[in-house]
Amino acid sequence: MTSTQPARGTRDFLPNDLRRRFHVIDVVRDVYRRYGFEPLETPAFENIATLLGKYGDEGNQLIFKILRRGEHEASGQADLALRYDLTVPLARVVAQYQSELPKFFKRYQIQPVWRADRPARGRFREFYQCDIDAVGSTSLVVEADLLAAASEVLTRLGFTDFTIRLNHRHALTAMLECVGIPVALHAEALVALDKLDKIGVDGVATELRTRGVSDAAAVACLAFLADSTTPGIGTEGCLTKLQNLVAEHEGGRAAVADLQAIVELSAGTGAASHIRIDPSLARGLSYYTGAIMEIAVPDLAGSLGGGGRYDNLIGMFLGRDIPACGFSLGLERIIVVMTERNMFPATVTAGVTDVMVAFLDDTCRTAALALAAAVRSSGVTVDIYPEASRKVDKPLKYAAGRQVRLLAIIGPDELSRGEVALRDLTTRTQQSVTTGDVVAAIDTALRRGPDRTGRPRSIRN
Amino acid sequence: MTSTQPARGTRDFLPNDLRRRFHVIDVVRDVYRRYGFEPLETPAFENIATLLGKYGDEGNQLIFKILRRGEHEASGQADLALRYDLTVPLARVVAQYQSELPKFFKRYQIQPVWRADRPARGRFREFYQCDIDAVGSTSLVVEADLLAAASEVLTRLGFTDFTIRLNHRHALTAMLECVGIPVALHAEALVALDKLDKIGVDGVATELRTRGVSDAAAVACLAFLADSTTPGIGTEGCLTKLQNLVAEHEGGRAAVADLQAIVELSAGTGAASHIRIDPSLARGLSYYTGAIMEIAVPDLAGSLGGGGRYDNLIGMFLGRDIPACGFSLGLERIIVVMTERNMFPATVTAGVTDVMVAFLDDTCRTAALALAAAVRSSGVTVDIYPEASRKVDKPLKYAAGRQVRLLAIIGPDELSRGEVALRDLTTRTQQSVTTGDVVAAIDTALRRGPDRTGRPRSIRN
Repeated sequence: MTSTQPARGTRDFLPNDLRRRFHVIDVVRDVYRRYGFEPLETPAFENIATLLGKYGDEGNQLIFKILRRGEHEASGQADLALRYDLTVPLARVVAQYQSELPKFFKRYQIQPVWRADRPARGRFREFYQCDIDAVGSTSLVVEADLLAAASEVLTRLGFTDFTIRLNHRHALTAMLECVGIPVALHAEALVALDKLDKIGVDGVATELRTRGVSDAAAVACLAFLADSTTPGIGTEGCLTKLQNLVAEHEGGRAAVADLQAIVELSAGTGAASHIRIDPSLARGLSYYTGAIMEIAVPDLAGSLGGGGRYDNLIGMFLGRDIPACGFSLGLERIIVVMTERNMFPATVTAGVTDVMVAFLDDTCRTAALALAAAVRSSGVTVDIYPEASRKVDKPLKYAAGRQVRLLAIIGPDELSRGEVALRDLTTRTQQSVTTGDVVAAIDTALRRGPDRTGRPRSIRN
Repeated sequence: MTSTQPARGTRDFLPNDLRRRFHVIDVVRDVYRRYGFEPLETPAFENIATLLGKYGDEGNQLIFKILRRGEHEASGQADLALRYDLTVPLARVVAQYQSELPKFFKRYQIQPVWRADRPARGRFREFYQCDIDAVGSTSLVVEADLLAAASEVLTRLGFTDFTIRLNHRHALTAMLECVGIPVALHAEALVALDKLDKIGVDGVATELRTRGVSDAAAVACLAFLADSTTPGIGTEGCLTKLQNLVAEHEGGRAAVADLQAIVELSAGTGAASHIRIDPSLARGLSYYTGAIMEIAVPDLAGSLGGGGRYDNLIGMFLGRDIPACGFSLGLERIIVVMTERNMFPATVTAGVTDVMVAFLDDTCRTAALALAAAVRSSGVTVDIYPEASRKVDKPLKYAAGRQVRLLAIIGPDELSRGEVALRDLTTRTQQSVTTGDVVAAIDTALRRGPDRTGRPRSIRN
């Protein structure tokens, strides 16, 4: 017999999981829309050449490849690959539909991506990204706009303690040069620095040396990072340290000015109190060219999301550069933290069925279905117990386990009298109403709700 | 340079496309929920063994296969495959999480599936299915419930002229036997009959003979189908013909009784006026065991959706059978017809931006972002023109092309006076308001809307 497990590193989402996911996605979409981002979706797979060479060597290794069809299948060649992120597909789309898109194209995209990573706790091979990107402008207003939107999403979801770590690719380069790490070793050094959270200062020092960085440069680098991120130093303090370090480096000075501007521009937005300059922030992906940012919370290793400016990626598809900047929130990580912190309202987790219709024998089936149809057309959620049950115990027990509020019962007696028995599962009371009155009676019973009065209702029979 | 086309048979969805898709999906989800179906989602890919052997030979050929990772990659072996429909994953899920799911599990699932079909007009390699399935009961109330839900979706979307073609796998078998086609040739005969819409009666007659069916049987079969679907015959008339044909066939008699019951049970639901018995309906997938159904409209070759009962599929994963029945609506086909018929409300197609904020020089950037934040927090959709523009022409022209209703302009003069210039793009009037009053002024301007009064508004400056 076939295994019933989902494929390794992937998950099935049962109703209670999905209600949580939908809740988060609804908030994300609502906020993104209010910021003027428009929806975009791209196919799950791309021609393999679209993806290869865009994510660096490590990324290339993690791309899922799809076998070429037909006569070539036996050759084992792959011609398609699963979406690895939402940024490269956007770059392709901008190049392809340029004439149809506005000059400043702001889009949001909420779709799954797939990476052949080794599965681990909280790391999956299929996960959702919630991306916003603004294409067409080098203005730093874009960075501030993205950070404001991402902050508002998290605030609306109930997060208060998130940190926006902000850095700049050119500030990073300048910093490495100014502490004495030659350009040829920057890629190696960044791999090591990227692990600061995981392996600490001593670990990174060792790794820097292993990767060929001189003792003196490694010490200088880590000393600068410690100094510029002293607790309580503030964005201004950190920017001053950075400015002093890179004073002689032209690209570095410009980058620090950009960071300064992003902080100032954010002053009147919800992002302001969350921004912290982090000169060690590197971000893995190779396509970033300017500001880079990441959002973290204290109780999660890794980030809730990240992004940055990538002014050259679209050019790889178009032949001329179009500036762009984006931010991506990770749905799964947000849900992990919200679940652990109990941040979901109770109404989100449980499904609510207002009414369940039950019938006592098969002569009442048609009337039961007609009743369900009539009640649904008043906007109420109605399930139907599909099998005849001479005694009401079975549907009653089933309904009680399913958070049903009212059970509407039709038996031969009710049918002959043109009535329906209406049982309130919260107050445990029952009344008979005529078929003509049942929609109104259900409406009244649902409005009254036990959470408002707590008292039982009148019983007619 | 890399191609910017999406992969063959797939599509990019730009904002105006997506707004239409979201509109349909929102209606589908709302109706499904009100019928008591709960959400489920499964991974895009499955272990390859989960899918192979479930869809018949033709289906097997159309499954996209994913290359095994790591050291095995060079071997060209595939260990994963892309989801081909939503029914087999549901069967796996029911087997896997049986103890967590209710006895009668009703789920909806709206996700893409992938088939390596030859792309053609309206046939894609990636498309969305909107499925409902009810697991755990053999009651025909289930079939009626599914048909009512699918009918309500289409009715809510504005369809009035759809036909629900209803048949039964056992009625089909009995019919074939009773016209003289031996069981060994049924599979061949069904392939031929399935093409009735495409190649007509003569084409099918030829194909039946090619596939080994005797002349007499082919003639009898097609004569019965013509006779039982005479225009105006009605469900009762058709059922009587079928009953007469299969009177000596036990399975056939039971199937006709089932069809009769489904028609009766639907009497009080929205499906009633749309149901038509179609003894030629075969449905391609091999897992159906009982009632089968398909929804069609006159102006679309193929169907808007289809489904049926499959009482043995879950058993392939679980080792013991659990009855189930499902129905799937095809999102793309619904959208094709709705677009051709102009059924989308104008508000769905165009995105609406209530306000666009523009600033005249960089000293006003921070104030512009703060203004955007303040207005957004009142629930309004606000975009920001990202670049300083000494004259207002550029943002004005841009906003006009983007269906923006109000342009909020901040220049150095406005900044020094603590004001914002508010320009109504519909009435072409402009007023200055203090920063403190701007949220209220925007609210008033948006509420008033040109569609209500059509008159220009007061201008303060």
